[in-house]
Amino acid sequence: MLFYVSIKVTIPPETDPGTLEALKKEEVAHAAELEAQGKWLHVWRVVGKWANVSIFDVSDTTELHAILTGLPLYPFMDIEVTALCEMHPPAAKAV
Amino acid sequence: MLFYVSIKVTIPPETDPGTLEALKKEEVAHAAELEAQGKWLHVWRVVGKWANVSIFDVSDTTELHAILTGLPLYPFMDIEVTALCEMHPPAAKAV
Amino acid sequence: MLFYVSIKVTIPPETDPGTLEALKKEEVAHAAELEAQGKWLHVWRVVGKWANVSIFDVSDTTELHAILTGLPLYPFMDIEVTALCEMHPPAAKAV
Amino acid sequence: MLFYVSIKVTIPPETDPGTLEALKKEEVAHAAELEAQGKWLHVWRVVGKWANVSIFDVSDTTELHAILTGLPLYPFMDIEVTALCEMHPPAAKAV
Amino acid sequence: MLFYVSIKVTIPPETDPGTLEALKKEEVAHAAELEAQGKWLHVWRVVGKWANVSIFDVSDTTELHAILTGLPLYPFMDIEVTALCEMHPPAAKAV
Amino acid sequence: MLFYVSIKVTIPPETDPGTLEALKKEEVAHAAELEAQGKWLHVWRVVGKWANVSIFDVSDTTELHAILTGLPLYPFMDIEVTALCEMHPPAAKAV
Amino acid sequence: MLFYVSIKVTIPPETDPGTLEALKKEEVAHAAELEAQGKWLHVWRVVGKWANVSIFDVSDTTELHAILTGLPLYPFMDIEVTALCEMHPPAAKAV
Amino acid sequence: MLFYVSIKVTIPPETDPGTLEALKKEEVAHAAELEAQGKWLHVWRVVGKWANVSIFDVSDTTELHAILTGLPLYPFMDIEVTALCEMHPPAAKAV
Amino acid sequence: MLFYVSIKVTIPPETDPGTLEALKKEEVAHAAELEAQGKWLHVWRVVGKWANVSIFDVSDTTELHAILTGLPLYPFMDIEVTALCEMHPPAAKAV
Amino acid sequence: MLFYVSIKVTIPPETDPGTLEALKKEEVAHAAELEAQGKWLHVWRVVGKWANVSIFDVSDTTELHAILTGLPLYPFMDIEVTALCEMHPPAAKAV
Repeated sequence: MLFYVSIKVTIPPETDPGTLEALKKEEVAHAAELEAQGKWLHVWRVVGKWANVSIFDVSDTTELHAILTGLPLYPFMDIEVTALCEMHPPAAKAV
Repeated sequence: MLFYVSIKVTIPPETDPGTLEALKKEEVAHAAELEAQGKWLHVWRVVGKWANVSIFDVSDTTELHAILTGLPLYPFMDIEVTALCEMHPPAAKAV
Repeated sequence: MLFYVSIKVTIPPETDPGTLEALKKEEVAHAAELEAQGKWLHVWRVVGKWANVSIFDVSDTTELHAILTGLPLYPFMDIEVTALCEMHPPAAKAV
Repeated sequence: MLFYVSIKVTIPPETDPGTLEALKKEEVAHAAELEAQGKWLHVWRVVGKWANVSIFDVSDTTELHAILTGLPLYPFMDIEVTALCEMHPPAAKAV
Repeated sequence: MLFYVSIKVTIPPETDPGTLEALKKEEVAHAAELEAQGKWLHVWRVVGKWANVSIFDVSDTTELHAILTGLPLYPFMDIEVTALCEMHPPAAKAV
Repeated sequence: MLFYVSIKVTIPPETDPGTLEALKKEEVAHAAELEAQGKWLHVWRVVGKWANVSIFDVSDTTELHAILTGLPLYPFMDIEVTALCEMHPPAAKAV
Repeated sequence: MLFYVSIKVTIPPETDPGTLEALKKEEVAHAAELEAQGKWLHVWRVVGKWANVSIFDVSDTTELHAILTGLPLYPFMDIEVTALCEMHPPAAKAV
Repeated sequence: MLFYVSIKVTIPPETDPGTLEALKKEEVAHAAELEAQGKWLHVWRVVGKWANVSIFDVSDTTELHAILTGLPLYPFMDIEVTALCEMHPPAAKAV
Repeated sequence: MLFYVSIKVTIPPETDPGTLEALKKEEVAHAAELEAQGKWLHVWRVVGKWANVSIFDVSDTTELHAILTGLPLYPFMDIEVTALCEMHPPAAKAV
Repeated sequence: MLFYVSIKVTIPPETDPGTLEALKKEEVAHAAELEAQGKWLHVWRVVGKWANVSIFDVSDTTELHAILTGLPLYPFMDIEVTALCEMHPPAAKAV
């Protein structure tokens, strides 16, 4: 089941740079794992912001919540979730 | 080059049902063509609305404008475009 | 899987009263059916508005979209969907 | 009498983790008690946020205010209250 | 139990002036009755708008909904309801 | 002359609890005085928030500004003022 | 007593041009009269809009309401009123 | 050339009171000077806020920017500028 | 003197296509003239919308108002004007 | 390819003045370089704010993201990017 997830990251100015670097590395590793599992289907960065738009493919909403709240940078994320539905055949999608 | 495009369709209540059906059919054919050309990379419907979120892959912004304003349902669409950027390697995407 | 759905109904002033009454009756019958099936889990009316807040229990987002767009009054509804997750045990819910 | 209550929790980054853990435990205990009393009728977590949507069943607005301001995490909550009304028979609810 | 109710009236430009005048008269009579019953406790007009802010004193939310949707001008009203609570002694009210 | 005043109080988390308690006591005393003078005509607490809605009866806007900025908790208040007008006879108020 | 009034005029596209011209002429005459009486103290047009920002000097809010609702173009106006206060000496005004 | 300028002042709670008092005094002196030069044509305080609405009369936008950014309290100001135009004769202003 | 002007065009669905085509042609001719006079310095179309962002170079705000309200499509335009200032030397512009 | 970029700078009050001055100097040098390369086509300051509106001419969105996130003051910038398209001939631009 697909969800569109818009994530905006805001780091408080007083955050320790070393801690932040470590969190970013964990985030990369964590994201790679979710990607390998086919959960984090797509992610694109929004130009000019520390923000991205993503598509997650999960078995249910509880799994999505667990994934999002388990992201290393979660405490700094403002997250908006939009439920999507898939359509067949593809050519019907835009109508 | 990738763009995130959010489209909301609003049909004025007085629209002739026959005209609308014809436009929807044209929209499906048109969308299928753009999909076959690799321009309309992804489209998902938003649950509970006549709206979708899409990813377009175009050579420049002028092409994107031509595509969007050429959609048969364009006169009824409220469109928001967000510039995206691709990242390599994928595991770096979330940071 | 649970979704919170906020529905606001707006009837264009020029709507034929007879047509509207017929749609309302269909809506009641349709809602009763969805309720009997355990899909439309809860619905409460918002005081002072033609609006309600609901909880739907569906197997996936595609089913939810089909249910919402199939409501007789759907063309007059402004719908917002929020993905929810269930928690166990209940006492953990508020934290 | 029913009220829809939307609660968003925001913890200032400088909060002491021990204090926060203690407050969370108190919140769980407190919520369980209100649930047992039939006051906190429903609570669901919003996916991707530290937020929930709830239904409270109280005898009046003063009781609701006392309950909400008495929650251990209240100082960190942004709360929106919407008055609901119950309808009979259920099948009439959606119209 | 007290509720703050903010009402904004918008009359579609094509409304028949005679119908509107009749509705206004009904509204005055209806309001006077609710006032006499002690339900519509206060009402003040907002300067520069066809809008008012009111305090209703009702036994429950279902009664409030019945009162508001029963107003002759209800179809033209945009209504926002805010639950209030009374405090004793009065001098404690502002804190 | 009447004004509707909506007040939202936000206390910075680092405020000293003793200072806050003292300010609250001053606020109660100050409010009682304004109430006794007939200036602070009504005040109701908004459920679920440290906020209230009030009606002030003042001789002019300069007096209202002096009253509001003189409240002990003023530095923590976000205040919105709406000019109201009184109508006679009461039954005409709602139209 | 001074009030800042922001007025935005929106004419429905189907308005009869002759009726509109007549209303505009009445508006000019009416405004000139209020200006001569010292009630409509200042008015400036907002660049690029049919909108203006004004200062009214009235004896009370009831008078202001009567003036604003008596403007010939009032049915097409969206009006926002902000209560102002005068300060002496002038040099103290900006602080 | 006239500009409407809306200024909202927000002082961070940790500001040193002595520094603030000094800045306020500078602001008064500075404002008096701009007033004497005919640049700061009007200023009124908004009731219930540390905010004002002003009319500036400047030779061009660069001068206005220099004036606003040169105000002693500028670092604490949130400023919105609206371009105005003067009309002749006055009686034409409101149309 | 420079102004940033954001223009959004909305054509009511019932507009006569012939009238609209004629207005568009007038708009092109009118725009070309303003461009030749050096008044309409820049104009770019916003992707996915009938909207553009422009820079106007005018001698004062009254001239800008006359230009904008004189555009053939003005009745269908929603216009926002932002005052800009030029800086020298260019390298100082971004700070 | 052109993009409209709106930049608002907010400096946290506790920022060290020396660090800020150094960053501003770097920003000027950096901006001058981008200007010399023809990437930062236009920049105008918004009157009354530390904000500017800019036009960037870049080969793709990835380059734009690299430029924006590489600005010395980027950590203090709130950036909005709007995709533009160029039109030929110029006289067609406004329609």
